[in-house]
Amino acid sequence: MSSYKAPLDDIRFALYDVLDSDALFAKLGFGEATRDIVDAVLEEGARFNETVLAPLNKVGDEVGCKFDPADGSVATPPGFADAYRQYVEGGWPGLVSPAELGGQGLPHAVGVPIKEMIDAANLSWGNFPLLSHGATEALGHYGDAWQKDVFLKRLISGEWTGTMCLTEPHCGTDLGLLKTKAVANGDGTYSISGTKIFITAGEHDMAGNIVHLVLARLPDAPAGSKGISMFIVPKLRVDADGNTGERNGVRCGSIEHKMGIHGSATCVMNFDAAQGWLVGEANKGLVAMFVMMNTARLAVGLQGLGLADRALQNSLRYARERLQMRSLTGAKFPEKPADPIIVHPDVRRMLLTQKALVEGGRLLGYHAASLVDVVGHVQDEGEKAQADALLGFLTPIVKACLTEWGVECTYHALQCFGGHGYIHEHGMEQLARDARITTLYEGTTGIQALDLMGRKIMQQQGAGLRVFLGIIEAFCKEHEADDALAEYVAPLRAKAAEWQELTIAIGRGAMANADEVGAAAYDYLFYSGYVALAYWWARSVAAADASSRPQAFKDAKRETARFYFARLLPRTLQHKAAIESGAVSLMALDAAAFDA
Amino acid sequence: MSSYKAPLDDIRFALYDVLDSDALFAKLGFGEATRDIVDAVLEEGARFNETVLAPLNKVGDEVGCKFDPADGSVATPPGFADAYRQYVEGGWPGLVSPAELGGQGLPHAVGVPIKEMIDAANLSWGNFPLLSHGATEALGHYGDAWQKDVFLKRLISGEWTGTMCLTEPHCGTDLGLLKTKAVANGDGTYSISGTKIFITAGEHDMAGNIVHLVLARLPDAPAGSKGISMFIVPKLRVDADGNTGERNGVRCGSIEHKMGIHGSATCVMNFDAAQGWLVGEANKGLVAMFVMMNTARLAVGLQGLGLADRALQNSLRYARERLQMRSLTGAKFPEKPADPIIVHPDVRRMLLTQKALVEGGRLLGYHAASLVDVVGHVQDEGEKAQADALLGFLTPIVKACLTEWGVECTYHALQCFGGHGYIHEHGMEQLARDARITTLYEGTTGIQALDLMGRKIMQQQGAGLRVFLGIIEAFCKEHEADDALAEYVAPLRAKAAEWQELTIAIGRGAMANADEVGAAAYDYLFYSGYVALAYWWARSVAAADASSRPQAFKDAKRETARFYFARLLPRTLQHKAAIESGAVSLMALDAAAFDA
Repeated sequence: MSSYKAPLDDIRFALYDVLDSDALFAKLGFGEATRDIVDAVLEEGARFNETVLAPLNKVGDEVGCKFDPADGSVATPPGFADAYRQYVEGGWPGLVSPAELGGQGLPHAVGVPIKEMIDAANLSWGNFPLLSHGATEALGHYGDAWQKDVFLKRLISGEWTGTMCLTEPHCGTDLGLLKTKAVANGDGTYSISGTKIFITAGEHDMAGNIVHLVLARLPDAPAGSKGISMFIVPKLRVDADGNTGERNGVRCGSIEHKMGIHGSATCVMNFDAAQGWLVGEANKGLVAMFVMMNTARLAVGLQGLGLADRALQNSLRYARERLQMRSLTGAKFPEKPADPIIVHPDVRRMLLTQKALVEGGRLLGYHAASLVDVVGHVQDEGEKAQADALLGFLTPIVKACLTEWGVECTYHALQCFGGHGYIHEHGMEQLARDARITTLYEGTTGIQALDLMGRKIMQQQGAGLRVFLGIIEAFCKEHEADDALAEYVAPLRAKAAEWQELTIAIGRGAMANADEVGAAAYDYLFYSGYVALAYWWARSVAAADASSRPQAFKDAKRETARFYFARLLPRTLQHKAAIESGAVSLMALDAAAFDA
Repeated sequence: MSSYKAPLDDIRFALYDVLDSDALFAKLGFGEATRDIVDAVLEEGARFNETVLAPLNKVGDEVGCKFDPADGSVATPPGFADAYRQYVEGGWPGLVSPAELGGQGLPHAVGVPIKEMIDAANLSWGNFPLLSHGATEALGHYGDAWQKDVFLKRLISGEWTGTMCLTEPHCGTDLGLLKTKAVANGDGTYSISGTKIFITAGEHDMAGNIVHLVLARLPDAPAGSKGISMFIVPKLRVDADGNTGERNGVRCGSIEHKMGIHGSATCVMNFDAAQGWLVGEANKGLVAMFVMMNTARLAVGLQGLGLADRALQNSLRYARERLQMRSLTGAKFPEKPADPIIVHPDVRRMLLTQKALVEGGRLLGYHAASLVDVVGHVQDEGEKAQADALLGFLTPIVKACLTEWGVECTYHALQCFGGHGYIHEHGMEQLARDARITTLYEGTTGIQALDLMGRKIMQQQGAGLRVFLGIIEAFCKEHEADDALAEYVAPLRAKAAEWQELTIAIGRGAMANADEVGAAAYDYLFYSGYVALAYWWARSVAAADASSRPQAFKDAKRETARFYFARLLPRTLQHKAAIESGAVSLMALDAAAFDA
């Protein structure tokens, strides 16, 4: 079975030493978020995740959720409901929600390490509260006073959980095609009818009610994505005071049999004249949906990070224990029958790749979360606009890179175990199966790439990229005379310049042929991710050196950064070449000729 | 459920048009292997695989093998045993075995397309006959007359199946550590005792007997890998005439619960004073084992290819059917509610990547198989030596690249399905889980890389590489004035020159520091694989143009080659940079400091 220990040391380094969270929180008016409080939250989070959630990860996979067709109920795996009760008692659901709604009012940047721990400890379980968070965001922005009082407060307390009901059998990415209908009842409520699929936590036995946020069409709605509205549809009907009553007309029709996340209920939800309430304006549902979606995308990125870290921890342990062959430079442990496999360069390649992607990726993800705090709380409008542009730019990068790296890290970790990695009992194959969903849901990697290239670069003329390039240049300028950092600063500066040129070249090509946007998108996203990580690794070395941490910690950051620049940053070469080759090699072949 | 159709057209292209198999078979004295006969074999193979094995792929995954602890028996999934009966009746087990031993005496190059089809149709099922093939090779080389008469002939007829019993709980890669013991009984037989794990097809209900080839130590054996001998240990005892009797002292102790290939029995085998016969010389078991192993490595490479092809076929079908969003350059099917996703550049990227790796990889694999024929049958000693060196050089490349590409292709294919790919019923997630074993068994990718770099390059001073570079240069020279091929020939020539320089540079570095071999190995292997594929794609264009095939076929080859050179060959840039960065960034960090 795979084990998990929350990486508190590196989490603290990321928050305190690199992102300078003390100063940021003070500036944004998070008076509660002192170092003492944050430390206590992190430590209690570590305890909860290591001792309550992590031990349930295996049973969640083996037993899974059980659907009862007789009453449409879903039983979660043994221990899941009790863990949720403890989660609610601990006040975790409202950790980053406003105090006036019953939350704890802590910054998002404090919420993400807890999120990372939950995903590492038990991804399947984590999906139950995760969807509440998206619903909370949407209702926080667009709910009216009554909706906030009845639904939002209970989502924040954790008494009820939420869902996002978007996908239908014939439409996932293309929500403009959706068919679910909403008809006004004349009393301010609506009747919702239709079928939604892939509804995470759509039905379960962990909370008193389930608040579905459903996209549907009103009778007079325009066609396509401009005719979509959002509705609250609770599992149990509620009265004006929020008391629950009889079942509403919504029922789970079945749950999916999936490659992984067996402990997470992925439901087909049938709505049959279910009573609902409109959220925000009619036909503006897609805007409200994107509020949920952006939060969810960052959260799914964190899932990739959490799984990658658990993969790293276990493969590192195994590589130190497993004895096999001698080092090519002579026995390192002659008293043992063979050397531990961590002496072999290729095993180190797999471990260092994970370490570089996990620790660098942590900064990528936490930084984005800190931008959520800036956007929500900074006074200066100019700063807010810059942070907003940067957050929009980084969101698809965080989602796609952290999840694809999560898949990659679980791949390397399993490979470190050799044939044993393929066997269920070691837990590595579960991590690999669980990780595989993260590049698919909340928008596939290809959709993230299009969001980045089409919306954030082309439509917004690269506003977010400009902000990020400014941050990189400021860092390079600050350290240009620092010999100890020269090996990182010089190549980072060169890559940043190249990034800008590449972006301009793609934009120029896209004016002549719109397919150039789609053709460049995937490689541009990963090119961007690797340059961003180069920045975070260079900053990590600078921050470690400037800190009072032990020399071994500083050495580890420096050597991992060296590895990153030597062996992972060169992935940009391939992405650049692919981008520069343009759309022609992708579009020339006729669709019918693929198997000519 | 995923479907499968044998790609007969591209198989014929590979054999007849690119590899010029008619001329090769005639030269090697395979009088039976005329085009008519080969065509008939391919067509019957396609029928058998499409109609018998492919429909059992899903039930194999869902039901899996069942172990009965009461008697140590293993029940294979419904239909598996009957399919094996049909396989034996069809004469498939002995397809490439010598006629004098009851085989059909066809070339290996005809056997591999059938192997590819089996692996695509039903990888789990294919593992039962696969291991017989390795045992056949070992006994063909090292068995005595009685062993051939009793065991080998029955393996070739398919009446019995074989296994390779190498791995023990504490040693897989490092066989020098193995502990299984063999003691002479004084009557020419031996008593074998010990535990072997990960024994594919170690127990099942498909054949009359199971012939285990077991590595064990004699009492006076030298320590390490020079003290290993190989023994035949049958499941049922046999008399001098090969009649089976009572159970031998070997029994399945359990079967593994695995990520995939559920229909394949992966057994713990307990040997308790089991009766066995020495194969070949005492303490020379590792040499005999490598005969099995090299065959098995090529075969596992083909598994990657087969799965990749099935992945490609299904994702291509889905991409033509699934309607989602409009093309960025305007609706392509305005009469439909949305365009099929094959219009989108990023979907095409995933499809073309699969197509380029599958069709190029097919040539890589088939070429290696044809070298097995050359080594076994060519008259000229110089030619034989060259083919042998080239085969040894290509074997780790075929094994590692085709399996890693198999994993990659099943990844892209699942991704093309979006969230639906993660659901069991579509069959894509099974392909991904099944593919994951191929980079682990018969030597992990890292071990293939060490074999290539350490043995084939360093120890053999690159003899095989020189032969391959000569073949590439001859091709480039032949076509250097051909304008239609210039876009492939020029970059191929440059890459070949770079390949040679890179190899020399690694060799030079390795003389100073042996860790440079291990540090370069993985990236060198993939660098080599991508240059080799560039050669096969350039040759494919030339061969297609020179053939009488339809224009659409020629166009597809040309455009896929363009895609390959533009978007996949640049992966060499990253591998080259990693190689050139040397061992330092891998070795600097102390093992204890990875989580400092």
